[in-house]
Amino acid sequence: MGSATDTGPAAPAPRRKAGRPRGELLNRTKIAAAAVRFVGDRGYEALTMSALARALGVSASALYNHVDSKQDVLQLVQDRVMDDVDCSGFSGLPLHEALRRWAWSYREVFARHAPLVPVIAVLPVSGSPRTLRMYEEVAAGFARAGWARERVIPAIVALESFIFGSALDAVAPQDIFEVGHLAGEVPAFAAAVHSQKASVQDPAEDAFEYGLEALLRGLLAADG
Amino acid sequence: MGSATDTGPAAPAPRRKAGRPRGELLNRTKIAAAAVRFVGDRGYEALTMSALARALGVSASALYNHVDSKQDVLQLVQDRVMDDVDCSGFSGLPLHEALRRWAWSYREVFARHAPLVPVIAVLPVSGSPRTLRMYEEVAAGFARAGWARERVIPAIVALESFIFGSALDAVAPQDIFEVGHLAGEVPAFAAAVHSQKASVQDPAEDAFEYGLEALLRGLLAADG
Repeated sequence: MGSATDTGPAAPAPRRKAGRPRGELLNRTKIAAAAVRFVGDRGYEALTMSALARALGVSASALYNHVDSKQDVLQLVQDRVMDDVDCSGFSGLPLHEALRRWAWSYREVFARHAPLVPVIAVLPVSGSPRTLRMYEEVAAGFARAGWARERVIPAIVALESFIFGSALDAVAPQDIFEVGHLAGEVPAFAAAVHSQKASVQDPAEDAFEYGLEALLRGLLAADG
Repeated sequence: MGSATDTGPAAPAPRRKAGRPRGELLNRTKIAAAAVRFVGDRGYEALTMSALARALGVSASALYNHVDSKQDVLQLVQDRVMDDVDCSGFSGLPLHEALRRWAWSYREVFARHAPLVPVIAVLPVSGSPRTLRMYEEVAAGFARAGWARERVIPAIVALESFIFGSALDAVAPQDIFEVGHLAGEVPAFAAAVHSQKASVQDPAEDAFEYGLEALLRGLLAADG
C-alpha cells in the first residue's frame, strides 16, 4: 500500500519515461512476482497466459517474449518462492537441527503463499534451478549424516507432505474444530478441543511443533 | 462412459417421466455429489451457487430450496467425502494399528478428491455431523489409549497435515523429481532420486508408508 509520499519529499517516486513501451520493463523476475500475486488473489485455475498479460498490463505477445508457457511461468513461481526457504543449517548443524530449521522456514514461506501449495506440490522440479539447489542441500545433509541413499527421497517427501499440509493448517480459521451445538454427540472430541484451547496460544503452531518433532524423532530413530 | 446398452437389451435405462420438473429430483445428497464433481473438474474458485445450479440443470432458486449458501454446500461436500474414511479400527484395534488403517484410508479418499484438499483443510467442522463423528472415533481411540487430553488435537492435526500433503503427492507426476540436464549441478539429490527409483515401484506410496510409520513411532513413543 506504499505511495510516493512514503519515501519523503527528497526522494520522489521514479517515473517511467513518457512514451516508453511498457513491454520493455518486463522481465522474468517481474513475471514471477506477478504470477505469485495472481495465484494468491484469483487461484491457479484462473491463471492463463492472457489473464497474466492483462494483470501485467502488457500484450500476450510481450509476455511470450519472456516465457514459453504457463508451465514455464509456474517453474518461475516455484523458484521464486523456494528461494526464500532457509537451508543454511545444512552447511554446519547436525541433521536433526538443520531439518528443523528448514522445515519451520518452509512452512512459513508456504503459509504466506497457501494457494500455491496444491500447485507446487505436484510441479516437476526439473526446470527450476533454485528449487533443485534447495533439494541438493537437503539431500547432501542426509548423505553426510550417513543415511541409506534410497531412503533420502522418501524422508524428504514425508517431511514435505507434512510441511505442505501444515502450511494449509496455518491459514485455517482458529475455530476450525469448534463443535457448536453437536458437542453432546461427540464428547471425546469436544473435550480434546476444549483442553487444547485451554493449554496453547497458537494451535496450528503447536501442532506443527509437536508433529515435526515426532516425525524427526521417528525418521532419525530408524536411519540416523 | 457407460451407455444404455451396457446393461443389456433386457434392462433398458430408466427414464424420467415426461413433464416432471427437474427441480423435484433435487436433494442435498445430489447437490453434494454434483459439488464434489464440480470442484474436481473446475476448481474451488469457479464454484458459485449459480454455476452449481447450472451444472445441476436447475434454477438458482431451486438450489436455494435445499442449501443456504456456498458454505453450506461445502459442509455437505466435506461430510460426503469424510464418510468414506475407514474408522473401523478404533473400535477394537490397538491405537497404532487403528491410526494406520484410518490414515491409509484417509489418504486414499483425498487422493481421489485432490482438488478438495485445500478446501477441506481449512473448512470448519461444526456444520458437518458425519465429519464430527469421524473425529469423535479418532479422539475416543486416543482417550482409550490413555493419551494426555491436551495432546489429542495436536496429534490429529499432525497426522492430518501429513495425510493431506501426501494426498497431493499421490497425484503428482511420477517423474516430479527428475533433474534433467541439471543433474551435474545437484549430485547428491540426483543420486538419491536414482537410488529410490531403482528400489521402489510406487514412490508416493513408499514415501507415505515410510513417513506414516515414522510419525506414528514418534508420536506413540512420546505419549503412547
